[in-house]
Amino acid sequence: MSTKAVFYHAGCPICVDAERQFAESLDSTKFNVEVVHLGDAPGRLTEAEQAGVKSVPAFVIEGQPFHINFGASLEDLK
Amino acid sequence: MSTKAVFYHAGCPICVDAERQFAESLDSTKFNVEVVHLGDAPGRLTEAEQAGVKSVPAFVIEGQPFHINFGASLEDLK
Repeated sequence: MSTKAVFYHAGCPICVDAERQFAESLDSTKFNVEVVHLGDAPGRLTEAEQAGVKSVPAFVIEGQPFHINFGASLEDLK
Repeated sequence: MSTKAVFYHAGCPICVDAERQFAESLDSTKFNVEVVHLGDAPGRLTEAEQAGVKSVPAFVIEGQPFHINFGASLEDLK
């Protein structure tokens, strides 16, 4: 059974690097990765925030946020 | 051919979470992951610093640092 992992980003260069190195590199037998561009899908901001996401790029895995470096604050995407 | 990824940590709870979710979850056909505990191997601090690591837990992949959340500053490990 694979674990759901959501990768939130906003298209910034730091986000793209993180996506390339992590979102595309997680073991696909273990993870089902969904990539969400918060610029294109602002309706997902609330969900990201509720999961504890403060900035992008970030993963939410099993309800737990993991921020990778710092691209943009969630506040700046609203 | 697999890419070398070094995961630096210091045994903190945040480090352990990141290790469990990322270091153990990268596609092993793509990555050769080395886990370095900087508390146990302080001789690796300089190398981490030179790669741009500011805090742990962090990965260095292809010479590029990726900080995951914030466990401890590298300064505090010296």
